[in-house]
Amino acid sequence: MCTPSLRAAVARLAAPMDTVGAYHFGWIDRAGNPAAGDGGKAVRPALALLSAEAVGASAEVGVPGGVSVELVHNFSLLHDDLMDGDETRRHRATAWTVFGPAQAILVGDALATLGTEVLLDAAVTGGASAVDAARAVRLITTATRGLIDGQAMDVEFEKRDVVTVEECLEMEGGKTGALLAASAAIGAVLAGADDRVSGALQRYGHHLGLAFQAVDDLLGIWGATEVTGKPHWGDLRQRKKSLPVCAALAEGGTASRRLADELADPKGRGEESEEQLAARAALIEEAGGRAWTQDEARRQHQTALAALDEVPMTDAVREHFVALAEFVVVRER
Amino acid sequence: MCTPSLRAAVARLAAPMDTVGAYHFGWIDRAGNPAAGDGGKAVRPALALLSAEAVGASAEVGVPGGVSVELVHNFSLLHDDLMDGDETRRHRATAWTVFGPAQAILVGDALATLGTEVLLDAAVTGGASAVDAARAVRLITTATRGLIDGQAMDVEFEKRDVVTVEECLEMEGGKTGALLAASAAIGAVLAGADDRVSGALQRYGHHLGLAFQAVDDLLGIWGATEVTGKPHWGDLRQRKKSLPVCAALAEGGTASRRLADELADPKGRGEESEEQLAARAALIEEAGGRAWTQDEARRQHQTALAALDEVPMTDAVREHFVALAEFVVVRER
Repeated sequence: MCTPSLRAAVARLAAPMDTVGAYHFGWIDRAGNPAAGDGGKAVRPALALLSAEAVGASAEVGVPGGVSVELVHNFSLLHDDLMDGDETRRHRATAWTVFGPAQAILVGDALATLGTEVLLDAAVTGGASAVDAARAVRLITTATRGLIDGQAMDVEFEKRDVVTVEECLEMEGGKTGALLAASAAIGAVLAGADDRVSGALQRYGHHLGLAFQAVDDLLGIWGATEVTGKPHWGDLRQRKKSLPVCAALAEGGTASRRLADELADPKGRGEESEEQLAARAALIEEAGGRAWTQDEARRQHQTALAALDEVPMTDAVREHFVALAEFVVVRER
Repeated sequence: MCTPSLRAAVARLAAPMDTVGAYHFGWIDRAGNPAAGDGGKAVRPALALLSAEAVGASAEVGVPGGVSVELVHNFSLLHDDLMDGDETRRHRATAWTVFGPAQAILVGDALATLGTEVLLDAAVTGGASAVDAARAVRLITTATRGLIDGQAMDVEFEKRDVVTVEECLEMEGGKTGALLAASAAIGAVLAGADDRVSGALQRYGHHLGLAFQAVDDLLGIWGATEVTGKPHWGDLRQRKKSLPVCAALAEGGTASRRLADELADPKGRGEESEEQLAARAALIEEAGGRAWTQDEARRQHQTALAALDEVPMTDAVREHFVALAEFVVVRER
């Protein structure tokens, strides 16, 4: 339902940014031919539409919100892939590796800006009042700043040997929670929902985001690369301080201390063999990092569902929210 | 008048982005000590305040607009310096060379987002109505996209041997005209001015931007490096297709053809001696590129002043607008 508007928004970009954008979204291949690419999980637009329905509006009212959150999400992917030096995403070469860093920066900037434009347009085309469109802009702007703060922490963590569980959760709350919180409320805001309803929906999205990220962190270590589309042991190779690692380091037992020693050792950084990485994954598991993160995903999932109870909505809409939350915690990619 | 609010906005950034931002603005040195840096010309905030006064409001009403345009201007500087590989700005090492590319990307992203936040805040603190704040957001959003489009053209021109004068003007209209247009109207919009007044002020700013850029292009070749703070012959060394070059190439005479041959020759690219660059500057002048650009600056200056006549304002305010335009075309940096 959001795809036509999303494509129209990206098509508004001046050449060659429109091409870079279309490639990034998986709509064309690097030669410019149409592609039925894997455009990602589209959890965010789905939440935006549902949130309009949650307050009794039609899903259409949420469309500009869905397009906005998807644009902002992809702005962050374009910039993060470049900052992190990631060369593949969704089984494909990342945009900066194909079109160069400057295009990844520019198109990211442009998508972030379009994310505001489409919300302002919603007031012009009559789908939302000018005041509600401005409230939606506030929502997406706050989320974008949360996203940037989270990424800034993530970049900073790269330089450290130890990150506490609390710091990791704060980082993930920014990187993943902030935009999912906005996604789960933006349709409702466009439909004129009050701050209490918007707040509860944002809490649902925030905790869903933390559950999402906990699962992502598990997949980043134990996920099958042919399913995730990410490099095998990618997170371990980068010595990423994801939740399982932080939790394992906090545990303090024998395996935890061996893991800490290994991560603090500059020797062999980035050149670990598959066997060494597998042994490191086993250490994390032995120190309880895997189990803690699985529990954390469950806890956040439950907290998200509890927030839903604060918003009166039809059973059909509630079931969709529940199913989306379920999808997030049981997924394999 | 805008500096306290600007500093407060940048201070809102999470560490270490607040430090990177403060360094970029020249408020601290790379060691973190306070510095009385050259924060740039502040033409944009000055225009924003004046534009509020142009419609009879106090300059204070324009402050959020002035802060917004300065934030967006500096977002573009941070990203452009990185994309263009520029190592100095305002006599100092650029942020990406001091803090790394990731910080330059992140802080740029954050400043752009803050540029919207401060406008939305204007409605909360009561300086503007919610509708006018949203109109100001639209203005800054459109300008940001124009800025990005202009930079995209600029990046693309790097790969070409010839750029027409029209293409160059379009690029400069985006890179410089778009944000100056928004600057010259944003205070008026926050004060509730109608679209006719806002349109005329935007036209003033747009043409002022083109005059500004023509002067910038002249300084990029013939400016004294100790005054501009930019490397000597910088634009020529980069074989930048600025206005004097495009105009010289369009002229078609002997000097013009020799210039074209030189620019198309991949040999010695980036390794030209001072003497070779001085000779190239002389060729551009011989082909009329310098004179054409000086005329163009004057033409745009006149067109900008003419747009002012469409807006009734006090003589005092008009004189400020005229003085700012004068400052832009007679400056040496």
